[in-house]
Amino acid sequence: MKNTLGDNVRITLWGESHGQAIGAILDGVCPGIKIDEEYIKEKLTKRRPSGKTETARIEEDSFHILSGVFNGYTTGEAISIVIENNNVRSKDYQKIASIARPSHADYVAYQKYHGFNDYRGGGHFSGRITAALVAAGAILLKALEDKGIYIGTHIKKCLEIDDQDFSNDNYLKEDIIKLNNKNYPVLNDQVKERMIEKITEVALNKDSVGGILETAIYGLPTGLGQPWFTSVEGKLANALFGIGAIKGIEFGSGFDFAKMLGSTANDEFYLEEGIVKTKTNHNGGINGGITNGMPVVFRCAVKPTPSIAKTQNSIDFKEMKETTIEINGRHDPAIIRRIAVVIDAISAIVVCDLLASRYGEDFLKF
Amino acid sequence: MKNTLGDNVRITLWGESHGQAIGAILDGVCPGIKIDEEYIKEKLTKRRPSGKTETARIEEDSFHILSGVFNGYTTGEAISIVIENNNVRSKDYQKIASIARPSHADYVAYQKYHGFNDYRGGGHFSGRITAALVAAGAILLKALEDKGIYIGTHIKKCLEIDDQDFSNDNYLKEDIIKLNNKNYPVLNDQVKERMIEKITEVALNKDSVGGILETAIYGLPTGLGQPWFTSVEGKLANALFGIGAIKGIEFGSGFDFAKMLGSTANDEFYLEEGIVKTKTNHNGGINGGITNGMPVVFRCAVKPTPSIAKTQNSIDFKEMKETTIEINGRHDPAIIRRIAVVIDAISAIVVCDLLASRYGEDFLKF
Amino acid sequence: MKNTLGDNVRITLWGESHGQAIGAILDGVCPGIKIDEEYIKEKLTKRRPSGKTETARIEEDSFHILSGVFNGYTTGEAISIVIENNNVRSKDYQKIASIARPSHADYVAYQKYHGFNDYRGGGHFSGRITAALVAAGAILLKALEDKGIYIGTHIKKCLEIDDQDFSNDNYLKEDIIKLNNKNYPVLNDQVKERMIEKITEVALNKDSVGGILETAIYGLPTGLGQPWFTSVEGKLANALFGIGAIKGIEFGSGFDFAKMLGSTANDEFYLEEGIVKTKTNHNGGINGGITNGMPVVFRCAVKPTPSIAKTQNSIDFKEMKETTIEINGRHDPAIIRRIAVVIDAISAIVVCDLLASRYGEDFLKF
Amino acid sequence: MKNTLGDNVRITLWGESHGQAIGAILDGVCPGIKIDEEYIKEKLTKRRPSGKTETARIEEDSFHILSGVFNGYTTGEAISIVIENNNVRSKDYQKIASIARPSHADYVAYQKYHGFNDYRGGGHFSGRITAALVAAGAILLKALEDKGIYIGTHIKKCLEIDDQDFSNDNYLKEDIIKLNNKNYPVLNDQVKERMIEKITEVALNKDSVGGILETAIYGLPTGLGQPWFTSVEGKLANALFGIGAIKGIEFGSGFDFAKMLGSTANDEFYLEEGIVKTKTNHNGGINGGITNGMPVVFRCAVKPTPSIAKTQNSIDFKEMKETTIEINGRHDPAIIRRIAVVIDAISAIVVCDLLASRYGEDFLKF
Repeated sequence: MKNTLGDNVRITLWGESHGQAIGAILDGVCPGIKIDEEYIKEKLTKRRPSGKTETARIEEDSFHILSGVFNGYTTGEAISIVIENNNVRSKDYQKIASIARPSHADYVAYQKYHGFNDYRGGGHFSGRITAALVAAGAILLKALEDKGIYIGTHIKKCLEIDDQDFSNDNYLKEDIIKLNNKNYPVLNDQVKERMIEKITEVALNKDSVGGILETAIYGLPTGLGQPWFTSVEGKLANALFGIGAIKGIEFGSGFDFAKMLGSTANDEFYLEEGIVKTKTNHNGGINGGITNGMPVVFRCAVKPTPSIAKTQNSIDFKEMKETTIEINGRHDPAIIRRIAVVIDAISAIVVCDLLASRYGEDFLKF
Repeated sequence: MKNTLGDNVRITLWGESHGQAIGAILDGVCPGIKIDEEYIKEKLTKRRPSGKTETARIEEDSFHILSGVFNGYTTGEAISIVIENNNVRSKDYQKIASIARPSHADYVAYQKYHGFNDYRGGGHFSGRITAALVAAGAILLKALEDKGIYIGTHIKKCLEIDDQDFSNDNYLKEDIIKLNNKNYPVLNDQVKERMIEKITEVALNKDSVGGILETAIYGLPTGLGQPWFTSVEGKLANALFGIGAIKGIEFGSGFDFAKMLGSTANDEFYLEEGIVKTKTNHNGGINGGITNGMPVVFRCAVKPTPSIAKTQNSIDFKEMKETTIEINGRHDPAIIRRIAVVIDAISAIVVCDLLASRYGEDFLKF
Repeated sequence: MKNTLGDNVRITLWGESHGQAIGAILDGVCPGIKIDEEYIKEKLTKRRPSGKTETARIEEDSFHILSGVFNGYTTGEAISIVIENNNVRSKDYQKIASIARPSHADYVAYQKYHGFNDYRGGGHFSGRITAALVAAGAILLKALEDKGIYIGTHIKKCLEIDDQDFSNDNYLKEDIIKLNNKNYPVLNDQVKERMIEKITEVALNKDSVGGILETAIYGLPTGLGQPWFTSVEGKLANALFGIGAIKGIEFGSGFDFAKMLGSTANDEFYLEEGIVKTKTNHNGGINGGITNGMPVVFRCAVKPTPSIAKTQNSIDFKEMKETTIEINGRHDPAIIRRIAVVIDAISAIVVCDLLASRYGEDFLKF
Repeated sequence: MKNTLGDNVRITLWGESHGQAIGAILDGVCPGIKIDEEYIKEKLTKRRPSGKTETARIEEDSFHILSGVFNGYTTGEAISIVIENNNVRSKDYQKIASIARPSHADYVAYQKYHGFNDYRGGGHFSGRITAALVAAGAILLKALEDKGIYIGTHIKKCLEIDDQDFSNDNYLKEDIIKLNNKNYPVLNDQVKERMIEKITEVALNKDSVGGILETAIYGLPTGLGQPWFTSVEGKLANALFGIGAIKGIEFGSGFDFAKMLGSTANDEFYLEEGIVKTKTNHNGGINGGITNGMPVVFRCAVKPTPSIAKTQNSIDFKEMKETTIEINGRHDPAIIRRIAVVIDAISAIVVCDLLASRYGEDFLKF
């Protein structure tokens, strides 16, 4: 598994934050998908830092597709995407090379790789790698939209500020389209200002925040996924926990189920113009690990960005002694906004993999 | 993947609730593990219904190990475990064969398998299959204990009733040992009576409950897992979502991270007698997808048992018309207690798989 | 992978020669395949020893399907097949438990499993396990035939005796049907008597023979397989080398290509009633790893049965000293006849896996 | 699987013959392997055409390692290798874009990918992609040598010309070292001139040749591989059939077993200075799918290069009509010499994967 996700549609990630480039191989994509470079750029822009609360590092996310595309369409062969690393300031990191940043992977990486790992900027553990995920996922997001499958993510919660809920399935598609046209992913635009204000305040205190991101997938056919170890929940969860900052995932009512009785929690079936639907969607569109035709809805818990400028206690793992650390350099006080599009990209890959298992190599013909 | 979990240590599940038998193949187990049949029986007993609030169906979980064990020790070859199904009352199910039980997989299974699936008692989607998971996992749980790795799960929450928290890492091993000796998995025994009382009350109302289960894994070496798509979180999550009733999972502080600032959420490192530890464990023992030597702690959200005797609206999916359903027969108003040991078993399989990836075929020699 | 073969259609093997039972889990099979128990029995009979030149051990290959079949049809879930081991004479083996039988796996198994392996009759390395492969494969062989895909294997060569070649693609289907109705798999019946006579002679000398088996798969659609590491050749080869006695495989003209010029070796294309065909089939129906619509043809080299009654030099691997061995007990002087049906079974599993990758879960609907 | 090979050590290939670049991701490599760029270049040079009998296309195989290497050593993370395509003459191919070159993948690719594939120079099916395999494999070949494991391949046969055999295990290491220092991979240098002369003669006739390549792997520990579907034979075969020109593989005595009696074919064990050896090595170092400590020896059958300048019958698959084709442009009359190093590279990847399964992530520490 390592850097590879998926069974029939697969992505393999490579690269380090301060290396020459990062990239991904996307394999198993059906032939004939039109490549929309503008659409891909737009998604990459959503992942890029912007505004005064986010890192000042200007990342040049110009991507190159080196294979698997011919005359503007996917060929059916492996798609190699490369994004160069520019504007890298490795010096910021070298002075703290052996001091473990709390809640980062520095210490475990040193242990696991016996000190051979590229520690600069978190190396292969850096969120930087998600740029390649987004570029690859964008190819599939567009193809899914053309097939009537829409994926969108909003910031549901950041500290005490909550966004409104997704609409029910009759209006959900419109919600997602609107959301994907916004540069700040909240359903209620008034929430945006409050969040930015709060994050700015936190940043001034040399601190950071996390939050909860909520995702909806609209338009999936019934019957994707398998019972037991290829459940839709399991596949999405495994993929999404690839993002180091995500520490929780819940589908439908998730942890709120603990407060509910079965008679409330159960989703009663009914027919709407001959189509099977459920009155509620506490199960988040999945029964027994398999899509039931209702929207798939899930929420991811994102931990506060670990890199903060406040002084923290830590250890020097080479000299094995206690010390303190202050992480200066360029860091986001909040990465929730930027993770939203990464979740969309990963979800698109998982959805295509589920479709390919069910419908085969030409997985968009169903 | 389908019914198969794991890369280097693997389990494959088979069977239906009302078929002749259920079972599992556990492959990749290192040679030389002593089989303790009493220990396995004990774990199976924990999964079995007991007491007045749980289903009256007496499941004879006598297991047979048909391969992979010789002279009382594992051989290194595939271990085949078979558990026969006795005491099956299929008639209870036949009358509702085409009426979808809300929040069950009946409808999606009918759709996906074009009506060929064994619908009796949920067929292959039945929680009954977890008996084989428990028997297989018990072999590994025992071997891990002998190596100093302890896994335990308690009911953290059921409706408004909360159990106390796990102790910190200095006392956690004792917590787990005590917990595993109890027949009702709560740390605070006073909570047990309140929970049983509440569940009994709910059952009288023909209703059901879910809850939150909290698991701790003590004694893992640093360095298990990989960044991105073989993270410890991702592997555990994928495996645990195999249980249809689990709809959420969070590691460490999980969804509570959304309320925290980075300065609080970060786990500061320190040295204790030359060993690297963190003062808090908000990350649940995992950084960048890799174990950091602190206990791995996670919580699973369990939805209320969907089978309730109350009248519910539904559809007849063969005739495609709306109807109602009352699920009689034998059903648990609460399965959280029984799921605890299933989570332990699955966790043991995942842990051994992680060990085998890191240390190879003789994965307990490290 | 260990005991598991396949990506989307998968088989997992378990069992030891002298254990309680052997078996297989066949997963990923599409729902709705009719189970023909007589057909399965017929295939198992072909694998069973018969006649005076083969082992006297009467294997009771009565199989039990414990899951995945309901009302006579596959359900789409994992199919568990168990075959009990009766008539086991373990005593024959115990006296030579630590003496390595030349060209057997005794020594490597002892090394690899640190002496914990079940050595009786070769344990998990025994050809006995192929009975489960045949039972599982038979389910798919029948389903493929119903779809117009025919698989058959004949003994092409045994010492200096050669069988005739398969007919070209216009008559190949009939060849395969005839072959599958014979109890001795040769195209030319006169060859049968000569082979049996020769093998009897060899057996009297306490010796054994191998041979070459040739297989044809008729009726595959164009486009199965992938370039590079999922080639049809690669998948079949990986699966067939699972049989310990197979030490070579060649597709189409195989090793004879070394004697040919390109102008002879190339298969020129032409059209026959609008269908693309090749005038010759030196490539054995596969170009670039992908089926081209012509029959897939390959040959497997089978080494002589290693168990012979002649005195051989060997070592005692526990005491690490040189010694001699005479293998008495019941052994076949020739297993080529019995391997033919095992190759058919394995080929059917690989073909269905290729179909499932290309066409999805309902892989027989194309 | 598609473009990905391996379980714990994995390579993923991408690229097309006339695209911008080709490349590979090598994942699961243990940290701390020194990168020897000269060694890699040397291996790439062996794969490059040279001399008057080989294609005049001068391939610039300058490779770039974009990740997974830091300060000259592997980090333990995915290694991304990119090789640019220069000197590409696509015009040669465009005029025959819809005429199937006999024994090439043009027709099947068109069918499978619905015409979206990059057909230029065979696209993703081109032998060009093996340059990336060689660069990746060279990293591992060097690391294996440093550990005492040597891999080498010679041209055993080309038409009627045979090279001498490998020495027995006592002198095999020296044979391999000598062979790897030669630019023409034959053990007997006199054979070289005869082969080149013959190939030149064939080339003048607008024709091509294939041959047989023999490979030896010296120094493997006992116990690599698994019974059934992870056999050493099966893993090597699956990997090597990735090369489209390879149509057969045999281990040890391979197809010659068909002519032998068991008493001759069996490899008798003996002790040499306390080490278990076999007097003969008919099994090619593998028993029951597992290495037995003797050298692993196998032979691959390579078909004649399909691209020949002679007029051949074929079809136009777009217009579905019969036609003829003459393949001009730059083509090798013999690619056997160049495939030798590709086999070495693939073998190194498979060997490291086997080591990683047995010994874990730090697979060179055993």
